[in-house]
Amino acid sequence: MSGFAAQRHRADLPPNPLYRDPTAPVDARVRDLLSHMTLREKAGQLNQRMYGWNAYRRTPDGRFELTDALYAETDRFEGLGALYGLQRADAWSGVDHSNGPGAEDGAALADLVQRHVVERSRLGIPALFVEEVPHGLMALDGTVLPVNLAVGATWDPELYERAAAHAAAELRARGGHVALVSALDIARDPRWGRTEECFGEDPYLAARLTEALVRGMQGEHAEFFAADKAPVVLKHFAGQGATVGGRNSAESELGLRELHEIHLPAARAGIRAGAAAVMAAYNEVDGMPCSGNRALLSELLRDRWGFDGLVMADGLAVDRLARITGDKVSAGALALNSGVDLSLWDEGFTHLQAAVERGLVAEETLDTAVARVLRLKFRLGLFDRQHTTPPPPPSTPVGGSDVSGALARAAVTLLRNDGVLPVAASVSRIAVLGPQSATTAHQSGDYTAPQRPGTGTSVLDALRTLAPPGVDIRYARGCALTGGDVSGVPEAVAAAAASDLAVVVLGGSSARTPETGFADNGAALTAVSEMTCGEGADLAGLRLGAAQYALLDAVVATGTPTAAVLIQGRPHVVPDTAGALLTAWYPGPWGGEAIAEVLLGLTEPVGRLPVSLPRSAAQLPVHYNHKDTEYGGYVDESAEPLHSFGHGLSYTRFSYGPPSLSGRGVTVEVTNTGERHGRTVVQVYLRRLITSVWPRTLELCAFEGVDLAPGERRAVTLHLDADQLGRDGTLEVRVAQSSRAALDAVPLVLDLRG
Amino acid sequence: MSGFAAQRHRADLPPNPLYRDPTAPVDARVRDLLSHMTLREKAGQLNQRMYGWNAYRRTPDGRFELTDALYAETDRFEGLGALYGLQRADAWSGVDHSNGPGAEDGAALADLVQRHVVERSRLGIPALFVEEVPHGLMALDGTVLPVNLAVGATWDPELYERAAAHAAAELRARGGHVALVSALDIARDPRWGRTEECFGEDPYLAARLTEALVRGMQGEHAEFFAADKAPVVLKHFAGQGATVGGRNSAESELGLRELHEIHLPAARAGIRAGAAAVMAAYNEVDGMPCSGNRALLSELLRDRWGFDGLVMADGLAVDRLARITGDKVSAGALALNSGVDLSLWDEGFTHLQAAVERGLVAEETLDTAVARVLRLKFRLGLFDRQHTTPPPPPSTPVGGSDVSGALARAAVTLLRNDGVLPVAASVSRIAVLGPQSATTAHQSGDYTAPQRPGTGTSVLDALRTLAPPGVDIRYARGCALTGGDVSGVPEAVAAAAASDLAVVVLGGSSARTPETGFADNGAALTAVSEMTCGEGADLAGLRLGAAQYALLDAVVATGTPTAAVLIQGRPHVVPDTAGALLTAWYPGPWGGEAIAEVLLGLTEPVGRLPVSLPRSAAQLPVHYNHKDTEYGGYVDESAEPLHSFGHGLSYTRFSYGPPSLSGRGVTVEVTNTGERHGRTVVQVYLRRLITSVWPRTLELCAFEGVDLAPGERRAVTLHLDADQLGRDGTLEVRVAQSSRAALDAVPLVLDLRG
Repeated sequence: MSGFAAQRHRADLPPNPLYRDPTAPVDARVRDLLSHMTLREKAGQLNQRMYGWNAYRRTPDGRFELTDALYAETDRFEGLGALYGLQRADAWSGVDHSNGPGAEDGAALADLVQRHVVERSRLGIPALFVEEVPHGLMALDGTVLPVNLAVGATWDPELYERAAAHAAAELRARGGHVALVSALDIARDPRWGRTEECFGEDPYLAARLTEALVRGMQGEHAEFFAADKAPVVLKHFAGQGATVGGRNSAESELGLRELHEIHLPAARAGIRAGAAAVMAAYNEVDGMPCSGNRALLSELLRDRWGFDGLVMADGLAVDRLARITGDKVSAGALALNSGVDLSLWDEGFTHLQAAVERGLVAEETLDTAVARVLRLKFRLGLFDRQHTTPPPPPSTPVGGSDVSGALARAAVTLLRNDGVLPVAASVSRIAVLGPQSATTAHQSGDYTAPQRPGTGTSVLDALRTLAPPGVDIRYARGCALTGGDVSGVPEAVAAAAASDLAVVVLGGSSARTPETGFADNGAALTAVSEMTCGEGADLAGLRLGAAQYALLDAVVATGTPTAAVLIQGRPHVVPDTAGALLTAWYPGPWGGEAIAEVLLGLTEPVGRLPVSLPRSAAQLPVHYNHKDTEYGGYVDESAEPLHSFGHGLSYTRFSYGPPSLSGRGVTVEVTNTGERHGRTVVQVYLRRLITSVWPRTLELCAFEGVDLAPGERRAVTLHLDADQLGRDGTLEVRVAQSSRAALDAVPLVLDLRG
Repeated sequence: MSGFAAQRHRADLPPNPLYRDPTAPVDARVRDLLSHMTLREKAGQLNQRMYGWNAYRRTPDGRFELTDALYAETDRFEGLGALYGLQRADAWSGVDHSNGPGAEDGAALADLVQRHVVERSRLGIPALFVEEVPHGLMALDGTVLPVNLAVGATWDPELYERAAAHAAAELRARGGHVALVSALDIARDPRWGRTEECFGEDPYLAARLTEALVRGMQGEHAEFFAADKAPVVLKHFAGQGATVGGRNSAESELGLRELHEIHLPAARAGIRAGAAAVMAAYNEVDGMPCSGNRALLSELLRDRWGFDGLVMADGLAVDRLARITGDKVSAGALALNSGVDLSLWDEGFTHLQAAVERGLVAEETLDTAVARVLRLKFRLGLFDRQHTTPPPPPSTPVGGSDVSGALARAAVTLLRNDGVLPVAASVSRIAVLGPQSATTAHQSGDYTAPQRPGTGTSVLDALRTLAPPGVDIRYARGCALTGGDVSGVPEAVAAAAASDLAVVVLGGSSARTPETGFADNGAALTAVSEMTCGEGADLAGLRLGAAQYALLDAVVATGTPTAAVLIQGRPHVVPDTAGALLTAWYPGPWGGEAIAEVLLGLTEPVGRLPVSLPRSAAQLPVHYNHKDTEYGGYVDESAEPLHSFGHGLSYTRFSYGPPSLSGRGVTVEVTNTGERHGRTVVQVYLRRLITSVWPRTLELCAFEGVDLAPGERRAVTLHLDADQLGRDGTLEVRVAQSSRAALDAVPLVLDLRG
């Protein structure tokens, strides 16, 4: 019946409407299309209600067929604005991944749904297919990348740009359009379970990586997206990394300057790089949740920054506004009036027609939001290639593992080393211990698609493969990730005592259920979730399971040289008791190999800390770029971190010559004074002297990784950003290998006054 | 020589200048005096450089004589603006208290100094004598009151008003003029060592107590202060309770709404009550230290609130601004231009003449600040009674202990009681244990003057005095306040095992040195400072000394019924393992008696928590009035406190009838359904429903203590503040005995719309 109605309305259109003309300018096509739309159709474009996995089911013979739920949703507004998570199939979504789309049939599914949507739309408006791509496409066969925190540890925007390009190509190859990617949250409280989704604590590092993300996914800014490029929704705008107590989606109490200096630069950089969209954060800023925060979404983002892209709400964030407006109609009106264009799962935006009719929303405001949605669809070419292009060959796991593994290798960070690493030639017996050593189940973060059995490598597997012939490798798990059961510790201690080296792989887990990952044999590893990190898994004490400490202590006590390895999504409190300590964050499925290579010295450790590591939760907040107040520390504890932002050791040594300034270029001569190849990350920090507001101790303002052979020397010039320097005042420029070292570095004084 | 110069200048004046006329209006006198002043004299009025204790020395025969330091300071500006701490004599100030002024000769000292100041001033301008009165006058023989946190626990503004009046009278009786009193800091992070100086976590409770303070100290607002009333400097403006990490004088990152809703109401209330002055806080708000924060000190405080009193800087806070201005001259200019009128110890304000001459400060700006200082001096009658009136008889310790003891009794808060308390008639052997049980040395907070030997009562002493005849009381210290030495625990355990009841008195200490307090025998108690609280003593982990936990655990493990008592300046993490738990905060010298009375049931426990008690430092921040977000808690810990704001048990029971609303009056019938007299604190909370910004879970909006005999019933009407209700929206009114109970209380809905 509704199909008939659509036919009938279609007759009202001119035979060849402008919006159908691929040669017409996008803006003109948007205006033309808008002029033909009913209020109901417009409201429909702003809704992204449905979970994509409810739009189809598998028939017994393996085909996809569309569901009544999809029919009902497309009937409701005679079309569909956007569809979330069509490709998602994981335990969290509730879809058995063996039943969901994979690389081989994802595009066919997208095509099937899109055909229906266009058919049901009087004006033939296609839907946006929106997918989670937080660290690689969150869909079966999507390449899982290291989490953002590990990306932050690489300090390598170029490498990340290539990985982002790979993820976008995977998304588009299976019919997806828009990538939801965490990028804007700054890790200011490691208790927050989503710390893993942050590029770190520093606004400049995050800004550089956000630019790389946008460039990699979207390509050069152009009217149309290339077929292997995807518009990015940058998450989350704004301040979500600073919610009180590290509590997910709680309030942030940020003042305006703190917000602008720490939490907005990544967004600003991403938008300058052309980001198509941002997602409004759950948290409130200065009393208002971002989805209802006009000062943030309209006055700042659009009026001051000139952003002309899309603002998407976070899941059910519009409906949450009913807590203060009293009902969901006015909640939807508040969100739209504040600057939200597209909802996610909410009821509130389904009432926008009523909101306009009741005068809560001006039709012009609605039109503006609809135009933004339509513009993105035109820019994606969806009107011109309404259905997905025939699926290309599925992206090969090999290519994915190359990209992911390269990032993982670049992320491994050596925090402490008394000579235990790299593994010496004299070592013939290695004990590989700990709950993270022999499984890939907990190597990836939250928002990770299920991996097919056999994907990836554990540390144990990789050491077995990569260790020199004749090295005896024995394994004992020792304990679980969580809990205090130490019954397995004696076996691990015995293995350590009988070895020349103990590698203890500890950490946390963001695996939502056992099914999210697989042990080496392909079976689900644990019967219960050991999730201590990820969205909704905030950890007050920053402590690993109690048994992990017991294991580490007992192994160290054997006297066998010990290297502790942390696989984690946030800083945990781990004492510096082992001879060597390194962290790989969540390095992804191929992280075991990356870690083993570094342990063995096949790969140099090049990661640098993207966050400062606290000594305990009691001393939070801990960042290098705190305000420059003299503080002597707590009665019972230092206020300084255990290891500071930017820290990371090499197997070789570097010396830095005295820096010199020429205009805004800082030149320093860097020498590899050690015996091995290596990479130093030259870090340039500002310390403001005479200035208009109270300054931070240091601010990172430039960095560059430099690979050097033993004895090699190179003059490196880094260019300082005029915006960051500011326009007046006096400041010091300090070049060093970490934020801690910068405190002692000889400063260059730069006077910008007059 | 300079005396001669003064003589000479004096000749330029008309014979009877208007400012000398006691019948002329104060403002006219100020204007007239200003018109005669040189730039140098004006600058002098804004300086409060010198420590009062450096202005005099004792001669061998016990008289006071003035020092060259005072002569030099009065020569510098031909006069003296203000003098800090003339009456202070304590270990912190570096003055041997036996050498400083006491109740018997403080006024004579003040008189001696003032005579010199007036003589040295061409225009005969007297100095302001400014003293610390944080919890009673901080001078030998000053009555030490319970700290503000204990005052907060009384929920009794009337009682506090009487104590404040007593303190002001003591100050004036010995020639002091102006009282520095902490009142505005809101306790939002218990790690902060100055938590003890806060009235608690709640803005409304703090506002009510700040009003009481101002009324008590200043009396009814009038042109002139009465001879026993003292202008108050409310400390600190603003946001100091919210510095990051609970770090003293660090930055606060507050947004404007958080600042206004939580941190400014006490200041607003104090100013409405007529407070003569505020002290600008050390911390920065939105990037600028308060002393250089024009938005705070001028735009908000003066332009919006209409405050016409004095703004004093905190100690050396003006000089700190040189960190950003580059030198102290411009630091002084920045502070003055931002709204600071009077410095404290700074060099920056000594250069104000140069600052005017260089054009950094307009002379009109300087004049405005000088006028404020002079106005206060006229309002104090200092020009009319230039020297202090002859000293009245010294305030008697008896009167002081009455006032202080009454507050202490009202502050003792019973947190948990499984029937152990009050001490049953059947108890014949009591073990009194713990490092806080037998000394008064740690019963008072920071900023406490030394007490003469024999002042005050320890818990042990009071129990010995007050317990029924025949009750055997045995004492063992068990352990020290700090450290892990458990060698004394076995003796304490033996005492507990041989008793019917164990009272374990634990806690912290804000005693700066052993000399700050005395043990029962009058000797300094400890050889080293055990200071874990107070200014500069921030405690990350919120933990008592390790041995105290061992002591408590061991005593509880004996099976002897145990009451744990906490004497402390902040919430510490203490598990609820004893049968009874109570806290007296720092109750002051007579706190031991107050605690013993409550333990024995001679006094009813009536205190209520002014702060929520966290389970650990890892779950901070913890307050009842957090934003109303749904938060499920941490993976490893609840986000809820152990005990919530407003909680406090009685020995009797109360029932509340259903509340009713009439206009803005809330009436509830309260019944004492138990067997004993008691006091319930009726607490009225708001929960905002339909509103313009995201609301808090609850907001305290009215409270009243109600004393009831067993079986007595009374209808109590509390009036809601129109300002706090707001002007539109819908809200719930909930009446309960604690913030936690209010969550379950039946709400009354109040619709303010239309």
